[in-house]
Amino acid sequence: MQDKIMRVRGVIPPLITTFDEQGSLDEGRLREVVRFLRDRVDGFFVCGTYGSGPLMSVQERKHVAQVVVEESNGLPVIVHVGASNTQATVELAKHAESVGACAVSSIAPFYYEYSEKQLEEHFLSLISAVRIPVFAYNNPKTSRNPLGPSLIARLAENGLRGIKDSSFDLLCFYEYTRTVRVPGFVFIIGTEALLLPAVQAGAQGCIAGLANALPEEVVELYRLASESASKEAVVTQQRVLVLREIMRRRGAIPTIHAILRLRGVDCGWPRRPFTPLREDEVRALKEELQEKQVVL
Amino acid sequence: MQDKIMRVRGVIPPLITTFDEQGSLDEGRLREVVRFLRDRVDGFFVCGTYGSGPLMSVQERKHVAQVVVEESNGLPVIVHVGASNTQATVELAKHAESVGACAVSSIAPFYYEYSEKQLEEHFLSLISAVRIPVFAYNNPKTSRNPLGPSLIARLAENGLRGIKDSSFDLLCFYEYTRTVRVPGFVFIIGTEALLLPAVQAGAQGCIAGLANALPEEVVELYRLASESASKEAVVTQQRVLVLREIMRRRGAIPTIHAILRLRGVDCGWPRRPFTPLREDEVRALKEELQEKQVVL
Amino acid sequence: MQDKIMRVRGVIPPLITTFDEQGSLDEGRLREVVRFLRDRVDGFFVCGTYGSGPLMSVQERKHVAQVVVEESNGLPVIVHVGASNTQATVELAKHAESVGACAVSSIAPFYYEYSEKQLEEHFLSLISAVRIPVFAYNNPKTSRNPLGPSLIARLAENGLRGIKDSSFDLLCFYEYTRTVRVPGFVFIIGTEALLLPAVQAGAQGCIAGLANALPEEVVELYRLASESASKEAVVTQQRVLVLREIMRRRGAIPTIHAILRLRGVDCGWPRRPFTPLREDEVRALKEELQEKQVVL
Amino acid sequence: MQDKIMRVRGVIPPLITTFDEQGSLDEGRLREVVRFLRDRVDGFFVCGTYGSGPLMSVQERKHVAQVVVEESNGLPVIVHVGASNTQATVELAKHAESVGACAVSSIAPFYYEYSEKQLEEHFLSLISAVRIPVFAYNNPKTSRNPLGPSLIARLAENGLRGIKDSSFDLLCFYEYTRTVRVPGFVFIIGTEALLLPAVQAGAQGCIAGLANALPEEVVELYRLASESASKEAVVTQQRVLVLREIMRRRGAIPTIHAILRLRGVDCGWPRRPFTPLREDEVRALKEELQEKQVVL
Repeated sequence: MQDKIMRVRGVIPPLITTFDEQGSLDEGRLREVVRFLRDRVDGFFVCGTYGSGPLMSVQERKHVAQVVVEESNGLPVIVHVGASNTQATVELAKHAESVGACAVSSIAPFYYEYSEKQLEEHFLSLISAVRIPVFAYNNPKTSRNPLGPSLIARLAENGLRGIKDSSFDLLCFYEYTRTVRVPGFVFIIGTEALLLPAVQAGAQGCIAGLANALPEEVVELYRLASESASKEAVVTQQRVLVLREIMRRRGAIPTIHAILRLRGVDCGWPRRPFTPLREDEVRALKEELQEKQVVL
Repeated sequence: MQDKIMRVRGVIPPLITTFDEQGSLDEGRLREVVRFLRDRVDGFFVCGTYGSGPLMSVQERKHVAQVVVEESNGLPVIVHVGASNTQATVELAKHAESVGACAVSSIAPFYYEYSEKQLEEHFLSLISAVRIPVFAYNNPKTSRNPLGPSLIARLAENGLRGIKDSSFDLLCFYEYTRTVRVPGFVFIIGTEALLLPAVQAGAQGCIAGLANALPEEVVELYRLASESASKEAVVTQQRVLVLREIMRRRGAIPTIHAILRLRGVDCGWPRRPFTPLREDEVRALKEELQEKQVVL
Repeated sequence: MQDKIMRVRGVIPPLITTFDEQGSLDEGRLREVVRFLRDRVDGFFVCGTYGSGPLMSVQERKHVAQVVVEESNGLPVIVHVGASNTQATVELAKHAESVGACAVSSIAPFYYEYSEKQLEEHFLSLISAVRIPVFAYNNPKTSRNPLGPSLIARLAENGLRGIKDSSFDLLCFYEYTRTVRVPGFVFIIGTEALLLPAVQAGAQGCIAGLANALPEEVVELYRLASESASKEAVVTQQRVLVLREIMRRRGAIPTIHAILRLRGVDCGWPRRPFTPLREDEVRALKEELQEKQVVL
Repeated sequence: MQDKIMRVRGVIPPLITTFDEQGSLDEGRLREVVRFLRDRVDGFFVCGTYGSGPLMSVQERKHVAQVVVEESNGLPVIVHVGASNTQATVELAKHAESVGACAVSSIAPFYYEYSEKQLEEHFLSLISAVRIPVFAYNNPKTSRNPLGPSLIARLAENGLRGIKDSSFDLLCFYEYTRTVRVPGFVFIIGTEALLLPAVQAGAQGCIAGLANALPEEVVELYRLASESASKEAVVTQQRVLVLREIMRRRGAIPTIHAILRLRGVDCGWPRRPFTPLREDEVRALKEELQEKQVVL
């Protein structure tokens, strides 16, 4: 198991999910996106926030998990099993284990606010339900329930194997690395925006939305960040911030679809309420990327 | 149709949903809760925030809608069909119409943030999917997507029939009543905390979480608020705020379960991550209610 | 003393302060504004948020207090003595008492966040420094330090005589009226935006920014609100909200200056960083007011 | 002038200000604190947030500026001249220049919210009032007015010489370094909490509250951060976060006073509303510091 979790490192896209124009899951296109990315990245994180996990039914999420594991060519696949309720999370986790996921990860249950005790019980139920490693996923903005350092430290003593931090608060990430005292615990930064300082502070990987569309850029940043604190690394982090801003300006998920299409990957549609970029938006996007010398 | 929507008035609990100890939907207990409440209130709002709608699958939510309509003894039932995605919302709405719901209501799609355009399209899809009235449900805190007065006014021009406002911001409620210019549009205040000023400002009903457990108290406030701005109405509003605070102190949904049980209604368990009150918490709760002369 | 405090009622503008073009306090113009308003309102609240108190030195604030008391023609004058530190607040309060203010009021000390204990000591120092009534002024947004109901209730037991609530949270106002158990304690709503529901809930006055520029409109609303919960009162509250929105769109303080000038009152300049409205903005403002049939 | 600004580097405490028990400025004790620190740090930032600038009158602030310049033994002194209004800021800046300050710095005017245009005019007035370098100081939490990267870039084109960023948002700091295109512009991180990543991203100094009390710890971190991205640097950053947390737990300003006293420096009292630590709090603080092997 130690081996397995050690493989979670480097640049990992929180894989987008592909739908057809009517909004149904599109398996063929999903395989195409995975095939495009699998030679460019170090693993996959599926059905997360970028992956539209919260927009899908349990059935659909199982389907996605299975397809990505099949198509991943042996790269580690972390299946995000976070949901609004514990039952669905446990069901998704057992399924992920059964299809060969390397690990599962869960955001705090979303929609309602919970007490720390209720959050702890949620994660303990998840941890005891599977034998593969469990990561917590801290995203207070979308879940409304922060997973603070003291809770994570306590869960680490009880079987939690890692944390993906998408709080965008580097202080929080530092606190995790300081508070968790369990050897081998894995720290993952959940955004390319803080890749450089987080890797320097001990992150062994980055789950990077931008790596769905421009994986080469994030991989280059990761390489530089891993080597040393060079001036070049800082400049590359700044470039990634610019590209990230371009990705986010018109909505991140629809823009990733548009960029992949510009790169020749038939990735279908985002699911509604998300709507695809209009043609004029795609043209403007293309110009912005070309201005930045992005190779499409 | 005008008739139907005019029936939405008075005190309407956002009905809690009952589960068994393992977390499965418990139809028998649901019927028992409805039977307890149906002689005490003016209608039902099902599968909303209090109703654990966001914790249930589409299948389960349909089941709840059907059971409550059956058991409602002719009281108007508004089915909350809000979800994270448009597809599920439309599916739930069609089902609600087919089983005889009086109206449907939808929160803004939750988890992700959307543009106003995307929110508008979501609601237009919902409105065009059914012939029964559609209410919007404004709850920026849980959904992360406020439904502002200008959006609601525009939707009202396009078939939206009412708004349930749970923003806890009376200014927002005033803005709705000022901005919407469509005759017959229904304004509902989505909390007992502001019942009095909202009714005085034109609300024709209140969807009141507290009415799940202590409907008599909310009904009395509604009666006074409808009559005039008496000193008694103000004192009763203050009393309702105290009771509401007692309901919320240990978590609203688990506390409603506890109070109903104290009143002899077998209402089962909340679904996890919610956890039932501990015995000592129930004792303290009971004492607090007795101190306030609540008749259990 | 009881007499004095009972006079604090009705519509009270938080009087703007007039400066010359170079930013010096302009006493002559201040007297002109007071003379314009004193026949139209029920008292004055000076050196508050609208009054640019936080932009002035202690010396300047004393000057303003004295001038307004002199010019007020016997109307009650509440001097706002809130500042960043306790020392300045006490000094201002003693001065206000010496020049004949009816009462003083203090916002929580601003800029830093303080513990409830520190806030309590601040107010106790103020209360013990003067014999005239002391009001607390709750404005969490500008001061960063909310004055919660339990603190206010405790201070009321120790000599605090009233609260001006500008939280824009009607629930907070209700909580004050419920929690404070001292007879004769005065509740003032600190915005015209919630005048109607607050008066119905027991407010005996409204400190209304809009009453600097359009006092007649706020006085009419207050009259209707004091009489009964009529439909007309609601419509008038809505009208006041519209006018308030016009006042705020281009910045409240500069817009009040512009409206007074349109009404023929030479009220000078706001102090920088505030900047006066440009000519085109004044023209647009005038049109908006005329559209709403405001008598200038 | 280039020389002067280049001297702003390294570890700079935002010097606390000393008062006597009655709350009057205490010049003798101020000199004692400066003498204690001047051999341990690289400069002084006076009358800032830690320095109680917003609690003092313009007269008092001038006094502090003069005393610290006199006592600084040639170390660079940046005088914080930020205030609620432009007039006071300009007056303070001219004075600072006249007494030999190396540079001045201003937070956005606090208490009110301003438009970007109004903020820009404020800073342009300040820049044109003095010949010494002007730094902007970004602290959205206390001032309520963020100084965003595009505003800072525009001001940099118009004479602004540096930025002190206390937003605690590393993304904001990155954006500054990316957006400002003026050679020689100085980036200072405004907290020891992010010293390491900020220095690696190009900060040439750190204004560190903790350096008032434990300068040796911050200096050691700065040394390591300047050298390379070593494991030791990360561990030292984490240690600084722990010490910082100890400093903040009972209120930062009163705790700095207590630590300095434990170190034998007679530093007087904080000004009210701040209150000194109680004896039992000092004892607990001492134990916590000893536990962490802090040399007092």
